[in-house]
Amino acid sequence: MAAAEILAVLKTAAKMNPRKNRPLLHGKRVLLLFYEPSTRTRSSFEIAAKSLGAMTTLVQSSGSSIEKGESLLDTVYTLRAVGADVLVIRHPNAGAALLAARHLDIPVINAGDGMHEHPSQALLDAYTILRHRKTLEDLHLTIVGDIYHSRVARSAVHLFSKFGAAITLCGPPEFLPDLAGSLAPSLRLTRTVEDAVRGADVVMVLRVQKERLVGKKLSLQEYILKYQITAERLKLAKKDALLMHPGPIVRGLELTSEVADCDQSVIVEEVENGVPVRMAILARALGKR
Amino acid sequence: MAAAEILAVLKTAAKMNPRKNRPLLHGKRVLLLFYEPSTRTRSSFEIAAKSLGAMTTLVQSSGSSIEKGESLLDTVYTLRAVGADVLVIRHPNAGAALLAARHLDIPVINAGDGMHEHPSQALLDAYTILRHRKTLEDLHLTIVGDIYHSRVARSAVHLFSKFGAAITLCGPPEFLPDLAGSLAPSLRLTRTVEDAVRGADVVMVLRVQKERLVGKKLSLQEYILKYQITAERLKLAKKDALLMHPGPIVRGLELTSEVADCDQSVIVEEVENGVPVRMAILARALGKR
Amino acid sequence: MAAAEILAVLKTAAKMNPRKNRPLLHGKRVLLLFYEPSTRTRSSFEIAAKSLGAMTTLVQSSGSSIEKGESLLDTVYTLRAVGADVLVIRHPNAGAALLAARHLDIPVINAGDGMHEHPSQALLDAYTILRHRKTLEDLHLTIVGDIYHSRVARSAVHLFSKFGAAITLCGPPEFLPDLAGSLAPSLRLTRTVEDAVRGADVVMVLRVQKERLVGKKLSLQEYILKYQITAERLKLAKKDALLMHPGPIVRGLELTSEVADCDQSVIVEEVENGVPVRMAILARALGKR
Repeated sequence: MAAAEILAVLKTAAKMNPRKNRPLLHGKRVLLLFYEPSTRTRSSFEIAAKSLGAMTTLVQSSGSSIEKGESLLDTVYTLRAVGADVLVIRHPNAGAALLAARHLDIPVINAGDGMHEHPSQALLDAYTILRHRKTLEDLHLTIVGDIYHSRVARSAVHLFSKFGAAITLCGPPEFLPDLAGSLAPSLRLTRTVEDAVRGADVVMVLRVQKERLVGKKLSLQEYILKYQITAERLKLAKKDALLMHPGPIVRGLELTSEVADCDQSVIVEEVENGVPVRMAILARALGKR
Repeated sequence: MAAAEILAVLKTAAKMNPRKNRPLLHGKRVLLLFYEPSTRTRSSFEIAAKSLGAMTTLVQSSGSSIEKGESLLDTVYTLRAVGADVLVIRHPNAGAALLAARHLDIPVINAGDGMHEHPSQALLDAYTILRHRKTLEDLHLTIVGDIYHSRVARSAVHLFSKFGAAITLCGPPEFLPDLAGSLAPSLRLTRTVEDAVRGADVVMVLRVQKERLVGKKLSLQEYILKYQITAERLKLAKKDALLMHPGPIVRGLELTSEVADCDQSVIVEEVENGVPVRMAILARALGKR
Repeated sequence: MAAAEILAVLKTAAKMNPRKNRPLLHGKRVLLLFYEPSTRTRSSFEIAAKSLGAMTTLVQSSGSSIEKGESLLDTVYTLRAVGADVLVIRHPNAGAALLAARHLDIPVINAGDGMHEHPSQALLDAYTILRHRKTLEDLHLTIVGDIYHSRVARSAVHLFSKFGAAITLCGPPEFLPDLAGSLAPSLRLTRTVEDAVRGADVVMVLRVQKERLVGKKLSLQEYILKYQITAERLKLAKKDALLMHPGPIVRGLELTSEVADCDQSVIVEEVENGVPVRMAILARALGKR
């Protein structure tokens, strides 16, 4: 997606009123294929689709023939054949949505593919930032946490890089291999959270899953000590810096409860903005603006 | 809920025609958050909402980020943020709905919280009784079974006490601790089912889960012998007494199949009445009468 | 179902436009009760119902009181009581839909009952064949695979027998006991796939589940060697023979990927045709043509 296209989606989103139904997609069938559990992304897409008058059908890995060993491609052929006009797909494997898109004659929307990408999240984050800043240019974005496993981080880096953002990634080697520097040009990596947060316009905190520290050098306590975003650490950012998190958050782990609920936190706003952004994504996918 | 308010809900319910859709809640979003399995309560609320023209979105603990350890409050903030106008919640913990209600600016409806309350069930039971009797006053209500674990029993006791009902609770100590007498004033406890049923206007039978007798003094066979509602025992109640059960029933355990299907049984009627009563609850929650 | 009734359903289906919503069943409630996982049948019925303007409610065995040990009959009474106008049921036990139908005053549609029947699949297969041939008469139908466990095979045999089809069943004894010959008059059984396919108008391939060969004489490799439908074997059928499969397919097992995607394959078409056929089934069940 080019920068211009991103801005166009955000512009369409700004015209969407998520509180008012608009039958732009009346009669269209939106198939939601979720191979991974999801509350916010799934309900956000579902509500976006229904708000536009579309018909939604949810297929989840539990309770479907997915369990019977059918291949991804055969499953998406099936969903196309039952009448899907657009397919929204979340899958644990990188490239799943792309694979589906290459074989289908309908738009496929990536709702998260493994550790690879989560583009609608990046778009809603951009949208959220634009509600508080005039432009996406000259942004100092800091991302803290488990960057290695995060499709949200990857999609954010790709999107904001296109607008020339200065991006700092911060985390322990377990969550931020040196290699991560190659994700985009001019990324800065640091192991010191104070260093990362200082002067940032946006501090994006990522979820940390305890299970992922099992058998690693780093203990959970050490992570919290070194990387948890606290009120004090957040003060190092710009005064009007935004605190973002794609959710679900674990209070007391990657951030304190105080930070999650502070004035600078736009965590709930991100979820809210997911609906108009996904309305825009769906509408544009089906040729409506 | 005061007695007057209860009667007002029941009056609204009586005006609802569950067989005829009425777009009273057109464009409203009803989020159904179910942390526990449910067929009747969930489908009843879903159909009630859809019959009023609302849009429903179901979030169940399996297949959602609930599994990822997100706190209840953060989950309900998320559902509010995706656009919920009203939240219907079932949760294994007592107080879950109240907690959500305290933190949200939208109505929260308790669809069962642990062993605590199941108010919409009590309302539909009251509605069902009023279809057969002129008033809720002077009612002799007998509840038999696993009262200790039953939110249905608790909500029934609270509701019918407000109308001065004479309530008898009956069960073995495993299911009815002596302490239960403190639930409401003027409750009568007995261990003898014949004594409990004699002269009752309504006999409400509660489900008994075998698992709950494991490791207890009382065997399943003994429970059945002493407490099962049989046709013979039901005869001890008033001639026109109603036989109620919140379901799901286990035929041959807490009641015989003969009793479940007898003329006095209003078990299916209770389910039917769930729809207009929940239509009324939803409509009133959103300011529509 | 008599032959005339089958043709009537197919005629109604031909008039259904699955791409255009038609509020024939506006305000009707279609309850989908699925005790077994399903993607295509469930989404097909759901989309068919919604396309006709009906309201759908899905009850799956995971996440419902089905888990609490409620009997099938009590569950369907409940779904009737919450307002079902028609019940679509899939169940692992043969006769489940029939049992429900005998006790309810609303139409019950069998969406697959154990190893017994899957009538809507047979109807959509007949519909699919009629898109390519003028009549169902004089059909040479060959079914290859795990016939023993297949409700699809049983329903196909029943339906096509009514039109005088010459039906050949083919598979190893593990999947095709000699007894299978008694399913319908004039069935031919063979253990040789080449013999079965030769001269066929329709080759219907059935799914083979690896688990079902565990502990059997026949190895998976042997099955593939002897019974897999390959391009070469398919050539033995008539030139314009159709290759069918109810799905989900396992490429490389019961058929090669080449065959699944060949010009003669109507596998995806079968899924597509499921929607208008199920629209017809639902509409007729509710007295609409």
